[in-house]
Amino acid sequence: MPTTIHTPRALEKGTLRVVPVGGLGEIGRNMTVYEIDGKLLIVDCGVLFPEEHQPGVDLILPDFSPIRDRLDDILAVVLTHGHEDHIGAVPYLLRLRKDIPLIGSQLTLALIEAKLKEHRISPYTLAVKEGGRESLGPFDLEFIAVNHSIPDALAVAIRTSAGTVLHTGDFKMDQLPLDDRITDLRAFARLGEEGVDLFLPDSTNADVPGFTAPERDIGPVLDDVIRRAPRRVVVASFSSHVHRVQQVLDAAHANGRRVAFMGRSMVRNMGIAADLGYLKVPQGVLIDAKKAKDLPDDRIVYMSTGSQGEPMAVLARMANLEHQIEIGADDTIILASSLIPGNENAVYRVIDGLTKLGAKVVHKGNAKVHVSGHASAGELLYCYNILRPKNVMPVHGEHRHLYANAALAVRTGVPEQNTILGEDGVVVDLRDGVATVVGQLDLGYVYVDGSTVGEITDADLKDRRILSEEGFISVFIAMDASTGRVVVGPEIQSRGFAEDERVFDDVKPKIIAALTEAAENGTRDTHAFSQVVRRTVGRWVNTQHRRRPMIVPVVISA
Amino acid sequence: MPTTIHTPRALEKGTLRVVPVGGLGEIGRNMTVYEIDGKLLIVDCGVLFPEEHQPGVDLILPDFSPIRDRLDDILAVVLTHGHEDHIGAVPYLLRLRKDIPLIGSQLTLALIEAKLKEHRISPYTLAVKEGGRESLGPFDLEFIAVNHSIPDALAVAIRTSAGTVLHTGDFKMDQLPLDDRITDLRAFARLGEEGVDLFLPDSTNADVPGFTAPERDIGPVLDDVIRRAPRRVVVASFSSHVHRVQQVLDAAHANGRRVAFMGRSMVRNMGIAADLGYLKVPQGVLIDAKKAKDLPDDRIVYMSTGSQGEPMAVLARMANLEHQIEIGADDTIILASSLIPGNENAVYRVIDGLTKLGAKVVHKGNAKVHVSGHASAGELLYCYNILRPKNVMPVHGEHRHLYANAALAVRTGVPEQNTILGEDGVVVDLRDGVATVVGQLDLGYVYVDGSTVGEITDADLKDRRILSEEGFISVFIAMDASTGRVVVGPEIQSRGFAEDERVFDDVKPKIIAALTEAAENGTRDTHAFSQVVRRTVGRWVNTQHRRRPMIVPVVISA
Repeated sequence: MPTTIHTPRALEKGTLRVVPVGGLGEIGRNMTVYEIDGKLLIVDCGVLFPEEHQPGVDLILPDFSPIRDRLDDILAVVLTHGHEDHIGAVPYLLRLRKDIPLIGSQLTLALIEAKLKEHRISPYTLAVKEGGRESLGPFDLEFIAVNHSIPDALAVAIRTSAGTVLHTGDFKMDQLPLDDRITDLRAFARLGEEGVDLFLPDSTNADVPGFTAPERDIGPVLDDVIRRAPRRVVVASFSSHVHRVQQVLDAAHANGRRVAFMGRSMVRNMGIAADLGYLKVPQGVLIDAKKAKDLPDDRIVYMSTGSQGEPMAVLARMANLEHQIEIGADDTIILASSLIPGNENAVYRVIDGLTKLGAKVVHKGNAKVHVSGHASAGELLYCYNILRPKNVMPVHGEHRHLYANAALAVRTGVPEQNTILGEDGVVVDLRDGVATVVGQLDLGYVYVDGSTVGEITDADLKDRRILSEEGFISVFIAMDASTGRVVVGPEIQSRGFAEDERVFDDVKPKIIAALTEAAENGTRDTHAFSQVVRRTVGRWVNTQHRRRPMIVPVVISA
Repeated sequence: MPTTIHTPRALEKGTLRVVPVGGLGEIGRNMTVYEIDGKLLIVDCGVLFPEEHQPGVDLILPDFSPIRDRLDDILAVVLTHGHEDHIGAVPYLLRLRKDIPLIGSQLTLALIEAKLKEHRISPYTLAVKEGGRESLGPFDLEFIAVNHSIPDALAVAIRTSAGTVLHTGDFKMDQLPLDDRITDLRAFARLGEEGVDLFLPDSTNADVPGFTAPERDIGPVLDDVIRRAPRRVVVASFSSHVHRVQQVLDAAHANGRRVAFMGRSMVRNMGIAADLGYLKVPQGVLIDAKKAKDLPDDRIVYMSTGSQGEPMAVLARMANLEHQIEIGADDTIILASSLIPGNENAVYRVIDGLTKLGAKVVHKGNAKVHVSGHASAGELLYCYNILRPKNVMPVHGEHRHLYANAALAVRTGVPEQNTILGEDGVVVDLRDGVATVVGQLDLGYVYVDGSTVGEITDADLKDRRILSEEGFISVFIAMDASTGRVVVGPEIQSRGFAEDERVFDDVKPKIIAALTEAAENGTRDTHAFSQVVRRTVGRWVNTQHRRRPMIVPVVISA
């Protein structure tokens, strides 16, 4: 795996260059740039959600630096499906150039258009379907149906003079999906016969043995739980999981209950899905959340967001009794969702809160109310065997997922030297059926915080981590730098350090003494004096309190 | 469940009062206070480890306020076993009164003595064994063997004139444990015949259906992985899990490998366990970590700490190549441990780092290398049926665990009104076979940070959370309060907010203008001026950046 940064050689005509800008070593901010003969094609442009070591960050974008000076050469962005980790960074890309065409399926485009509307951008779009082909300069695109946890997902085969690439996007191979739209293995077979030079498969579940269970398995469980529920039912899931919501609608309908959508994204996305026919709403089943309160408790199902314990979402507010729907004894809550690593504490806090209110909480830990949207190892083996790709670069996963996926490729006969384990920014050139790592770009994380993009740096996040662990002590002093005499201060402020400010009475004389001594030894410069303050306070706080708060000395000359 | 605080009535002679000070609604800081006829007995005194919303906190202690004025009435602290969440707060309790006797099994006392030595305390101890009885004033104690993920764990039956209580501590019912020391169901049966008035059972796994698998199941898996390992093997687990380490020693020995202990607590605890005969070290298997490097790679197993992804522990340092043992291709790492909720991101970061270095990582997600130390629902049902307790108060669990445990009690015939679902500080009186909730104390979290205990408050933690999400902006101004003229400043500092301090050029004139205006309107007081600064900067940062950093204005009169 390349770890040192090296600039790739200039790209020759007739060679295809592939640069995954995001999604390698992380689940999120998926984005891959393809280039041949001076033209660029981008597949996906998503966001990554921050972890706890990136506090206060709203979103993380792919680093656009490899394309920033090439904006006019971009022919299009292909969006494989409508999840945030594949479309969420599009508004930020279009801020750089508004008229980059977006290519995707009907539902995918509808979801990105709704999102862009909030950013007041109306994009150029080209709707495509499975089986369709589009020629864009040197790229010949073929779209292939794949099955995922959102409808209308597409893989894309990219034919160029340098060879053929198959980029799956996220997928699984549910053989009995709700909408009967299976991952098109016939198309994979045909491509395999024709020859796939480079295969970029989804790695999320590559380390999960066996096969992902069918979405259909969940329906009977939901039906059973809803049928037995004595009072209200609240189901929480992802706001884009149309088929999961479909099963909730069907189960509610079968049990004589009506359904109210709760949460802004749930209402918006299900409106889009129903309008376009992806969600089939049984006659008369939907009811406005406000009117739902007038129904008897055993006639209603609330379909809400917040399955990951997000503090501001409907479910967490219910658990804290901060929501107009007051959860109580005999209510039933179903978390029909995965538990994304890192969210455990938040989710268990919500489950605990609901349990304390007397509700029965059904979740994947105690009932089969969730299946994954990604292909497990068994399914990936089918893909490798039917495609027989010449080269493989696993994408969409943390390193352990990429490694597990590469190992599957090798077990089906892909030579080990033809599997590429890359990091974001790896530069792979394809020519004559040979894929070679030719460089490694130095790409960073781009943080969105409030309305700022890229203004917060890793240094700021390091400061935030120190502040969160230890708080800070700021010391203000105005002094006569020529004599070392303190004119104003030391004025000490602290936050997150100790409740009682009198603790500092102890250190103030020490600061003055240290400054006087420094002046006597010839110090004249305010920066040097501020270092004296930092050392004095740092030593005091370490010996007296065994703590290491951030120390912010401000010494000015007065 | 009691949520309002109410002071309990005075305790009458002949009534037993039970106050769980910690461990209800949380997994950790277990501590229960028993009182009768003016005398107190404490069972366990553990710590809780902080979650991500308690940044920078080292440990959380039980709130000692109910016993702070009663120290001389405490007859003893019974320690059920040697885990941190049961013994970790003892040093802080003994700081209040050094000569409180500690009662526990041989291994438990050895572990707490080692810990107290670091705090320079040598305690009064009384070693007890299963089957033993001790009379302490109004309390008659009987100790009963229970099986857990540390050897030598004990339950305690407390007989008083008000009735008999059975307090299990942590336990499970492995029927084929490595040391053949099973949970003594015969004693439970005998107590049941005699009559148990109040039962306080471990709730950790009450919501897990079925039975916890035997520890013995892990041995063959370890043996298999170690046998196949081409190079070095590193096993990470809990440093008190003597039986897990025993199985590693045995598997290493069987495969001609030697074992080096890594990590301070692993070395210390296994030394104690071996000295006392709980760990049976095969002749010649141990080797000093420093000498282990001279062995061929396929002759060594490192037994280390760090299975929860702790950043300073051996395993995380190996994953970051910050350890003298440089992990590389074909090394095998086994995480023979649970994944404690909240640690997922840290653990997966370690797994990912090791994978990137080329190591094979075996963990409970892909092999049977861990079983829990707590009884699952099936085992708890056995206990209820053999004990037939009159009253039940589930302990040691978050609310969902306590509820699940109470539900098991009810299913075996304990009347629902006789199951007590309490929170920390609930006051339960037992008399004539009737247990009644008579009060609820207002107990808080006591945070240890560095050398300070209880100095950090929830307000400080709230400040730390704001600082970690948003950083801070401090504004220093010295002014002539009588005229509103700024003499020094505004001197603006920020951390965690933005890299480039020039962003503040914009707001400085706004601050001066706002202060001048306030002075013209009659403001004279520095506190009022500092509110003006806060509002001005707050409004600016919200409109310009859509952010909400902490704003720390310091206005002094010069």
